[in-house]
Amino acid sequence: MRDDVSALEKARLGYEPRTPDILRAPAPALRIEESDPPAVAGDADTVRRDFPRTFGQPMLAFTDGAGGRPGRPHRVGVVLSGGQAPGGHNVILGLHEGLVDAHADSRLFGFRNGPRGILKGDATELTREGLAPYRNTGGFDLIGSGRDKIESAAQIEAAAAACASLRLDGLVVIGGDDSNTNAAVLAEAFAARGLSTAVAGVPKTIDGDLKNEHVEASFGFDTATKVYAEMIGNICRDALSARKYWHFVKLMGRSASHVTLECALATRPNVALIGEEVRATGATLESVVESVADVVRRRSEAGKDFGVCLVPEGLVEFVPEMRRLIDELNGRLARSAGRLAAAGGFEAQQAIVADGLSTEGRRVFETLPAGIRNQLLLDRDSHGNVQVSKIETEKLVIEQVRARLERLAGADRYAGKFSPQGHFLGYEGRCAAPSNFDADYTYALGRTAALLVHFGRSGYLCCIRGLAGDVLGWRPTAVPIASLLHLEERKGKPTPVIAKALVDLEGAPFRTFAAARARWALEDGYRYPGAIQYFGPSDVRDRPTETLRLERGG
Amino acid sequence: MRDDVSALEKARLGYEPRTPDILRAPAPALRIEESDPPAVAGDADTVRRDFPRTFGQPMLAFTDGAGGRPGRPHRVGVVLSGGQAPGGHNVILGLHEGLVDAHADSRLFGFRNGPRGILKGDATELTREGLAPYRNTGGFDLIGSGRDKIESAAQIEAAAAACASLRLDGLVVIGGDDSNTNAAVLAEAFAARGLSTAVAGVPKTIDGDLKNEHVEASFGFDTATKVYAEMIGNICRDALSARKYWHFVKLMGRSASHVTLECALATRPNVALIGEEVRATGATLESVVESVADVVRRRSEAGKDFGVCLVPEGLVEFVPEMRRLIDELNGRLARSAGRLAAAGGFEAQQAIVADGLSTEGRRVFETLPAGIRNQLLLDRDSHGNVQVSKIETEKLVIEQVRARLERLAGADRYAGKFSPQGHFLGYEGRCAAPSNFDADYTYALGRTAALLVHFGRSGYLCCIRGLAGDVLGWRPTAVPIASLLHLEERKGKPTPVIAKALVDLEGAPFRTFAAARARWALEDGYRYPGAIQYFGPSDVRDRPTETLRLERGG
Repeated sequence: MRDDVSALEKARLGYEPRTPDILRAPAPALRIEESDPPAVAGDADTVRRDFPRTFGQPMLAFTDGAGGRPGRPHRVGVVLSGGQAPGGHNVILGLHEGLVDAHADSRLFGFRNGPRGILKGDATELTREGLAPYRNTGGFDLIGSGRDKIESAAQIEAAAAACASLRLDGLVVIGGDDSNTNAAVLAEAFAARGLSTAVAGVPKTIDGDLKNEHVEASFGFDTATKVYAEMIGNICRDALSARKYWHFVKLMGRSASHVTLECALATRPNVALIGEEVRATGATLESVVESVADVVRRRSEAGKDFGVCLVPEGLVEFVPEMRRLIDELNGRLARSAGRLAAAGGFEAQQAIVADGLSTEGRRVFETLPAGIRNQLLLDRDSHGNVQVSKIETEKLVIEQVRARLERLAGADRYAGKFSPQGHFLGYEGRCAAPSNFDADYTYALGRTAALLVHFGRSGYLCCIRGLAGDVLGWRPTAVPIASLLHLEERKGKPTPVIAKALVDLEGAPFRTFAAARARWALEDGYRYPGAIQYFGPSDVRDRPTETLRLERGG
Repeated sequence: MRDDVSALEKARLGYEPRTPDILRAPAPALRIEESDPPAVAGDADTVRRDFPRTFGQPMLAFTDGAGGRPGRPHRVGVVLSGGQAPGGHNVILGLHEGLVDAHADSRLFGFRNGPRGILKGDATELTREGLAPYRNTGGFDLIGSGRDKIESAAQIEAAAAACASLRLDGLVVIGGDDSNTNAAVLAEAFAARGLSTAVAGVPKTIDGDLKNEHVEASFGFDTATKVYAEMIGNICRDALSARKYWHFVKLMGRSASHVTLECALATRPNVALIGEEVRATGATLESVVESVADVVRRRSEAGKDFGVCLVPEGLVEFVPEMRRLIDELNGRLARSAGRLAAAGGFEAQQAIVADGLSTEGRRVFETLPAGIRNQLLLDRDSHGNVQVSKIETEKLVIEQVRARLERLAGADRYAGKFSPQGHFLGYEGRCAAPSNFDADYTYALGRTAALLVHFGRSGYLCCIRGLAGDVLGWRPTAVPIASLLHLEERKGKPTPVIAKALVDLEGAPFRTFAAARARWALEDGYRYPGAIQYFGPSDVRDRPTETLRLERGG
């Protein structure tokens, strides 16, 4: 099936992930070191009520230990959940090797196409031979992924049945905040049923928003942001060489702007919009646009009708007035579906919708460019809701900046030439072959998950500490997921979930950016990270993200 | 100014381009080897009439030679012309080092912002120290580039004056087919004036369409296509992992589809449209769309509602009926500019335009999706012409395929779910740091240009032969540009120009693709080239393009 791989992929199949000493040891040569339960993220009493068996568990670390638990064969299931992130295959590889090192007769089963595979009992056995062609590769194509949730009592029952039927003593969930919340729910439910399947979570997401005191970085963020930064650096160099285009680059990250911030730190563009800052300042779309147009104008005065601006995918949702407009449109669109479909042509449809908006909603709607109004009206999901992820935010910003510049030109305050180019970088990075960092990190996460299963600890998220330092010094730990939960409104009721980590406006990455951006705006201090290197000097091939370096380095 | 460079860029500043032995020798240790003038591309008599002094010159090669021309200081100008291509800085570096090796007192001047710099006499001296930070870097930002031409008698006079004023004995033009045609014109004009400035051309373009018997590849094609193939491979892996999106990727290449073909050979997507084939078969847009929709349908029947389709930027111009529509629209739009501007709204504008089209033109126009009709009407250049490069061809294909699938679904012949994602890869690759191949190749081209100046040979294009083999075996040669010229209609009159090389439907790259594509369409035999590597095993870091390998290898 995969008979003909590229030269680089072939070379990477031979890469041995660098591994901290402690994780090289087979599980029976290690012992668990418990420490106090961690400080609690949310309302302890409520979470304790929902998670009586898995809340309040100790923190775990691993240490050399004669007298560890004796080796025995493990049967473990693994599932990939949610969007692709580089390194998923190496988690499974590390898990497999950890289990087989604990006992040669251990067996690993991959549930196919995400949580749906658990619900259907659709699993395939993963062997050393079967895994070999996926070593250090990108993608989730080994077993696929999916976005289903296991939530209802019936679904939990089905999951328990699947685990019991395969006689699993471990289930490893590789996913983001929601998937790991789901892992906590399963761990609790399995414990309540007396099912001996230990559930372990592994923190995955290129968005970087699964991060906290214990999770220094989610896997995939390193590789994906490096792919984006490679492209953005190339675009910056093109802007500086051609000296005639303004490039607006939309980046993934609907709920948080970590990707945009990391790429800004790596490439030093003229403008980078950070959603969390926009929200914190209560900015209007107009004021955001004004700030961008101001940079365009000032660069133009310096003879530079070119530049680069990074825009997070979720920008519109961070602008309070846009968020309200989308909420209004969702209500209005859902109610007007029939009339809209019957209306002849785009302009008639717009009239119907604008008609029912609040005064503020209509004002905001009418300031939007036609293309965006069109998207807001027509790109609806099956519930009739606006599909925010399909909004071409980069084009919205371009059109609004253009309109603003035209007004400035009319007032003799701008005499430049504005030639914008829009870009969206997203799918280009999610399945890249993992960087050395992500290859090593995910392998270590997989081996840590194997340890949790070996020691029969359930409801834990695998964490590797010390990521900004050398791999050999990384420390595998595990945090009880229940301690990470706080209450959020979901489908109208308070639900315990892992909080998404937003960009911390007081954190070192944002502050570094904020301190430099006025200079980056006017100078051409672009930095060109170039392609991810898997070979060569250590500072080239093993460099962590700027975010990790600033947050955790030294 | 460039005080803080990335780790990779820093490492690359230390890379010594690998150089064929013959080019390591200083010019005075070499001699010219002449051979018969090459076979002529076009109408020999007409070209001879326009290029009496530079037509019919011999082919040149270089060989070791005691008794070569003695060293003397050279004064040389260099200019970058047209779109960015990876390796431009290394041409200048090789040129500088070649000149200084010929005589330590040689001096190099860079004309700023393209041919305009020649016209204005705007030049800056390039020194070893000044060039050092640009070693092996991407971009043209050292001296900038531009798209101006030097054509009129007054412009040629200005160029001659600029060269005379700087007392240049050489002018090196780094550019594509048009720029090198321009170099031939200058060489002839300078010779006619008795000006001793030898003009040399260097073949640059990421599009790959400056290629012939003598030019095995234009520089930049290797790096740019590798950047695109990296992204496309990642997208293919994402498609296979998520199993729910059809990705349509537009690639640069308006006149030729070499970039699309190379990327297809490197990544094996399900569909790749090759403009030259579309034109050769006289396909309609409808038939092209049908062929794509057919792959979507057949994959869907196999349970695969996902895939990847590559689309060359210039597709619409290769479809005969679209080419005619654009020509009609250009006439119509130019005449109706006033009425169009006065018309209220998009629908009224469309009515005005559709009104004046031929029956066939109107039929084709009306089958286009609204967004594309909008672009055809509104994205006009300063002459009122349709801006073909701004047409979102990938969206055109998406919308037409969607419409076709809806018709198939209506006839119960398709029951899949079509979720398309559009991409455009262009600016992401033009300024990437050159691959080892392009770094070595451009350095060798620069040193070859230095040899031409040293030997006072004018009107030549630098060629390196044997590119598919090891660098040490590469052979520097030079071909008289005039022999490459043929007559084309430009601005209404036959003009001698270098013919653009189109994809040869009988050539090995296309035939290899054509033989495999039926299998690629239905299987998921994607190949993932990954990021350009500058270090590591030789087959990873020094691999040529598939196109070069198939055309020139073994």
